[in-house]
Amino acid sequence: MAKKLTKQSENYSKWYNELVISADLAENSAVRGSMVIKPYGFSIWDNMKIELDRMFKATGHVNAYFPLFIPKSFFSKEASHVDGFAKECAVVTHYRLKNDPNGKGVIVDETAKLEEELIVRPTSETIIWSTYKNWIQSYRDLPLLINQWANVVRWEMRTRLFLRTAEFLWQEGHTAHATKNEALEETIQMLNIYQKFAQDFLAIPVLTGVKTESERFAGADDTYCIEALMQDGKALQAGTSHFLGQNFAKAFDVQFQSKEGKREYVWASSWGVSTRLVGALIMAHSDDKGLVLPPKLAPDQVVIVPIYRKEEQLNQISEKVATIIKELQAKGIRVKYDNSDHQKPGWKFAEYELKGVPIRLAIGPRDLENNTIELARRDTFEKKTYPQENLATEIENLLEEIQQNIYDKALKFREDNTHYIDDYQKFKKIIETTGGFIYAHWDGTAETEEKIKSETKATIRFIPMEDGEQGKCIYSGKPSAKRVCFAKSY
Amino acid sequence: MAKKLTKQSENYSKWYNELVISADLAENSAVRGSMVIKPYGFSIWDNMKIELDRMFKATGHVNAYFPLFIPKSFFSKEASHVDGFAKECAVVTHYRLKNDPNGKGVIVDETAKLEEELIVRPTSETIIWSTYKNWIQSYRDLPLLINQWANVVRWEMRTRLFLRTAEFLWQEGHTAHATKNEALEETIQMLNIYQKFAQDFLAIPVLTGVKTESERFAGADDTYCIEALMQDGKALQAGTSHFLGQNFAKAFDVQFQSKEGKREYVWASSWGVSTRLVGALIMAHSDDKGLVLPPKLAPDQVVIVPIYRKEEQLNQISEKVATIIKELQAKGIRVKYDNSDHQKPGWKFAEYELKGVPIRLAIGPRDLENNTIELARRDTFEKKTYPQENLATEIENLLEEIQQNIYDKALKFREDNTHYIDDYQKFKKIIETTGGFIYAHWDGTAETEEKIKSETKATIRFIPMEDGEQGKCIYSGKPSAKRVCFAKSY
Repeated sequence: MAKKLTKQSENYSKWYNELVISADLAENSAVRGSMVIKPYGFSIWDNMKIELDRMFKATGHVNAYFPLFIPKSFFSKEASHVDGFAKECAVVTHYRLKNDPNGKGVIVDETAKLEEELIVRPTSETIIWSTYKNWIQSYRDLPLLINQWANVVRWEMRTRLFLRTAEFLWQEGHTAHATKNEALEETIQMLNIYQKFAQDFLAIPVLTGVKTESERFAGADDTYCIEALMQDGKALQAGTSHFLGQNFAKAFDVQFQSKEGKREYVWASSWGVSTRLVGALIMAHSDDKGLVLPPKLAPDQVVIVPIYRKEEQLNQISEKVATIIKELQAKGIRVKYDNSDHQKPGWKFAEYELKGVPIRLAIGPRDLENNTIELARRDTFEKKTYPQENLATEIENLLEEIQQNIYDKALKFREDNTHYIDDYQKFKKIIETTGGFIYAHWDGTAETEEKIKSETKATIRFIPMEDGEQGKCIYSGKPSAKRVCFAKSY
Repeated sequence: MAKKLTKQSENYSKWYNELVISADLAENSAVRGSMVIKPYGFSIWDNMKIELDRMFKATGHVNAYFPLFIPKSFFSKEASHVDGFAKECAVVTHYRLKNDPNGKGVIVDETAKLEEELIVRPTSETIIWSTYKNWIQSYRDLPLLINQWANVVRWEMRTRLFLRTAEFLWQEGHTAHATKNEALEETIQMLNIYQKFAQDFLAIPVLTGVKTESERFAGADDTYCIEALMQDGKALQAGTSHFLGQNFAKAFDVQFQSKEGKREYVWASSWGVSTRLVGALIMAHSDDKGLVLPPKLAPDQVVIVPIYRKEEQLNQISEKVATIIKELQAKGIRVKYDNSDHQKPGWKFAEYELKGVPIRLAIGPRDLENNTIELARRDTFEKKTYPQENLATEIENLLEEIQQNIYDKALKFREDNTHYIDDYQKFKKIIETTGGFIYAHWDGTAETEEKIKSETKATIRFIPMEDGEQGKCIYSGKPSAKRVCFAKSY
């Protein structure tokens, strides 16, 4: 850790960018908008993948893999889909390079032009539904419950590491069903899985609801989302689950023979979360000292730093540490021993605070004498000396406590920053100052939604799924069926 | 299983294509040369990934992720690299589509032309070494032991499912070292890991050696490979490990300060295996009835089929099966119970033979009375009735036996089809008829290599790493330092 981070309170955005770089999570690449995910950042994503994949499989889903490239014509088949994605896609037009006759490296070989251009997938509904057409004949072929882990490309103009990049990693589930109800149930089931994952693993409380038409996925009948609140008062959409109706089945003519012998169009859902979750994780919990990682996703849950002057002391400490490591690993705890000799303990302490390791153990000659060890919590900075006896059990419990504490803190922050507002001036003031979620009445028109957005930069994050009290639109005064949730967002 | 497969002996290539499709492993997509990996095929690849990833991590490697796109100019930096890859790459030239003014779908927006074209990665040495330049300053930053799981694209003209596709999935390791020796050791270590993986998991014995210059990876000083023999007598290169020398370090100016304070170029290795391994797995073991999967990689290791006439019998059987499943799962055995009611047992037996499930259990009313179960092995077609008692232990042992038997069979096949030949007419005859590996003397010239290839289609698969007896080139009669291994190949 070469230098201190900018403080959150000074410049939140700068703090975030510096943290991602200095904690070795990711960096910008030589390719505009594409990031390099470094080993430490990738390990967090990998831990997320393992848990999500387990949850998908436990609910009957299987993985498959569909092509990276999509023929251009596929995009035109679903009218709203092409409008949503055509503006931001990478287009492959040629399949060969050749030596520049002027000797300046390589150039595109114009004789190797594709008859039909290929689009690098921004999302895979079209290629998948063109495939499902051949897989689905009868109700016996349904449901299809398929997920893929893949990279996708959306040509974003303003990119930020993890939050918005031209290429990102994600999973996309694509399911096919015989009935509308079943497809709807699947859509909601996956939304609930995302919510549970966010709460139990990311330690982020999320709200769920349905998007307004203007924020809906291009090609969906309804888009459901999980929304999290970041520490700067801005919301972050952390995952979406789409009810696609029969839109893609109709676009690609996917029909099946029902039990009753009728030909019907198939019903669909799709749902995804991405490496954006790493950004959410950082912004929900971390502080001016660096990352605060929930133990369940931390690459290293415990780091051990030896305190010594002489080589001989290090040897004695290392011997003791070997036993401790064995005990921790026996409980499935991920532990790292940093006995590198070119950095002082103080430097290492700061480094692992920056990296967000939940528990730091320090052990020196006096600890050896007393059979003790010093333990520091990353989430509270609390330091305490523990006996070495039963240390593994102690740490196991503590990791759970830390996971819970991080969640509770994030929940309290959200509760403190959730407002029920009926006055537009107050609404604007909150949005301009502290931010947070604002539940307010809305008349249900795209016009009002747009006006509030252009005046305040706040958008409707979601419409709650539950019934609510009636009221008057905060902007137009017209009748409103229930409050909706506004916030500025990433 | 609608129809019988073409027999291997009639048309091996047709047999392979039919098997991949009818066993639900993969299919061709709407995009030329790109396949869809179906859930059953993907599950095999996923099982491979889990084991390989474990082996990589056990030897100190970590995962990361680098961009899909590579700026065109990067390719020109390593001279032989560009020659090897420029001819078969997908080129992104634009970043937007727009509505066709004539109303015919969407067209490329010519105003959204990239200043520099982007290449969809065929392999990632260039983008990774351009990144390593910023990561490596001192010997303390070395070694870097990084792997990535990714998709890559090579614009192949003749494609075959799994064996050669325009897009494929793989892992590519890219390591950086302070010394030549260390980089060489890493190259060989990874070759040995591939060999061990092939033998222990794929149940395929593989030979290892070094490629001739003409078969070397574009940019490598040396390419090491594992080579497997398929049942039609053709060899398949199943993995490669490249010693890259300082070529990419020089191309991207990656230098480090040594312990002695000198500036030196970094040494490198790269190594990869791909979804091609699924093709190898199929061709090494399967038969006219379908897949034969080694238990360690089979998505389902055991399938249970109930034999019944009345609903009541099915209920009784299912109750018993629930206990058996619990016992098997307690041992970590992957088991499937097929109680679907729209197919007869005979159909199911054929289906799971086609799918290569290592062990099939059948249980009927008489088995309930006698506390027995019928067990059929996929590898030998042996059928035997077992007591239900201790069944799980029995099956656990049997799965190991099957894994070993499949390996032994493949090893015997290779031994039976390995020849030491000194006569060119005999050489030609073997290549034309049974195929197999032929160890023969070669004068070491590219000219002879090329002539043998054009006359027989056989290539030098590898030069053995061990010393060998001297002799005379089978083609030119000139002196040869040792025998090299020839075969026709995929």
